[in-house]
Amino acid sequence: MNRIILEPKELEADGCEVLLTDARAAHLRRVLNVVPGQTVRVGLLDGPLGVGEVVRIEAEGVLLRCRWEPVVPEVPRVDLLLALPRPKVLKRLWAQLAALGVGRVYITNAERVERNYFDTHVLKESFIRGRLIEGLQQCGDTRLPRVSVHRRLKVLLEGDWSAEKEGCERLVAHPAGGVCLSEYIPLRHPERALLAVGPEGGWTEYELALFEKHGFASVSAGERILRSDTACLALLAILHEWMNFSTKIA
Amino acid sequence: MNRIILEPKELEADGCEVLLTDARAAHLRRVLNVVPGQTVRVGLLDGPLGVGEVVRIEAEGVLLRCRWEPVVPEVPRVDLLLALPRPKVLKRLWAQLAALGVGRVYITNAERVERNYFDTHVLKESFIRGRLIEGLQQCGDTRLPRVSVHRRLKVLLEGDWSAEKEGCERLVAHPAGGVCLSEYIPLRHPERALLAVGPEGGWTEYELALFEKHGFASVSAGERILRSDTACLALLAILHEWMNFSTKIA
Repeated sequence: MNRIILEPKELEADGCEVLLTDARAAHLRRVLNVVPGQTVRVGLLDGPLGVGEVVRIEAEGVLLRCRWEPVVPEVPRVDLLLALPRPKVLKRLWAQLAALGVGRVYITNAERVERNYFDTHVLKESFIRGRLIEGLQQCGDTRLPRVSVHRRLKVLLEGDWSAEKEGCERLVAHPAGGVCLSEYIPLRHPERALLAVGPEGGWTEYELALFEKHGFASVSAGERILRSDTACLALLAILHEWMNFSTKIA
Repeated sequence: MNRIILEPKELEADGCEVLLTDARAAHLRRVLNVVPGQTVRVGLLDGPLGVGEVVRIEAEGVLLRCRWEPVVPEVPRVDLLLALPRPKVLKRLWAQLAALGVGRVYITNAERVERNYFDTHVLKESFIRGRLIEGLQQCGDTRLPRVSVHRRLKVLLEGDWSAEKEGCERLVAHPAGGVCLSEYIPLRHPERALLAVGPEGGWTEYELALFEKHGFASVSAGERILRSDTACLALLAILHEWMNFSTKIA
C-alpha cells in the first residue's frame, strides 16, 4: 500500500480529516508503525494526491489530517476492450490493470468466450471496485478505471461511443497478423488509445472484420502468442510508453 | 498449448518420430481432436520450430512424425535480474516470463527480500523447468530461459559475467528516480539488455549504488509503483518493443 486511497464520503465536512478504522488503519499501525505527527501519502478517489498527517492513534482507529495538491491526476490515456477471460485470470488482473493505468475497461463477450464465465463473482461491481482500489493503492494513482460489461461485441462496437473515440487510436491485438507495434507506433501521435484484447484462442475472422469496419488497426507485439492477461499488461505498458514518448517529442 | 514442445531425448534415432503419452497427447486428442494425417505445430526444446504429422493414435499415445525448419529461433535479447519475489507471485511468473521471452533469469537476494522465501519449492529446478516449458508451449518459442539463483547480489554483480555483458545495456528499474524509459530508449541501440527489477519495497540506496558502480542505468516506466511481477512484465514488453524498433531503424 504505497498510497492510502480515501473516498470523498469518508472525509469530515472540512474535507481534510478522516478516521480510518479498517485495513488501512491496520496497515498504518502494523506495517508503517506510524506515530502522531508523521505524514503518509494519501489520495482522494478520482481526486487529488496529498499527504496525511497522523493526528491521533486511538483504540478505534487512526485519525489523519490531509492536505491536498491543487491538481487532480489525469485519467490514463489508454482504454481497454477485453474479451472476458477465465474468472481465475480476471480475478488477478483487476488490480494490475489499475496499477498500470487504464481509463475505461469494456469487458465483452466474444465467440470464443465460454458463456458460463459471465456468472462469476469477479464481475460483481463491489468485487471489481475493491480490486481496482487495491491497484491504485499499489501504484499511487487516484483515477478509478470505469468498468462496463457488454454481452454482445457487435452491439458494443455499433453503439453510441463515438464521442469517446475522437482523437483516439483504435487498436485490436492479433498475434498472427497485423502490423508490429514497433513499426506502427512511431508513425502515430494519438491523444488516447483504445486497445482490444481477445479471448484465449483469439478473435474469430468475423470479429476481426467487425473491428476493421469500426476503424480498429490490427497490431501485434511480435509473433509470440500471449495469454490474454499477459497480453493486456504487455500491450498496455507499451502503449503508455508510446503515449509518453509521443507527448515529449510533440 | 499453441506449440507442442519436444525434448531432444524424446525423439527416435531418426530425429523425427516421437510417441507422446502424457498431457501433450491428451491435449492432441481431447482439445485439438486430431486425426491421422493432420499436422500440428511442434518445437524442439532449444532447437528449431517444425510441424508434426499425426501418424497413429493408439491406446498408449499419439505418434508424430516431425519436419524441422532449418534455423533455430534466436535467444530472446533481454535478460532479467530479479530480486526474489514472494513465492506465490513467482510461481505464476515463470510461465509468463518464458512467454514474453527472456534469455537468462538471475534470481537474487536483496536487503528487502525475506530470507524464508528461498526455501520455496517454486525455486526447485524441476518446478521452474515445467513452468517455463508451459510458457514456451503458450507463446510458440523453443528457447528455454536459463535460470540461476544467487544468494548475494554483491557477489553476483562482481562475479565473472563480463563476457555476457558486452554490447549489453544494463538497466535497473527504480520507480522513484532514474530516467523515464521513453526518454532513454530512443537514444540507445543495444544488442542485448539486462534489466534488474527489485523486491516489494524496492532496492535500497546501498543496492542502487552497487548497480550504478556496475554500469546499470536507473530507469523507470513512469511514476507508478508496480508490484514486482507487473513491473517485470511491463518492462520486458517495453524493452522487447525497443529492441525490435532499434533493429528496424538501424
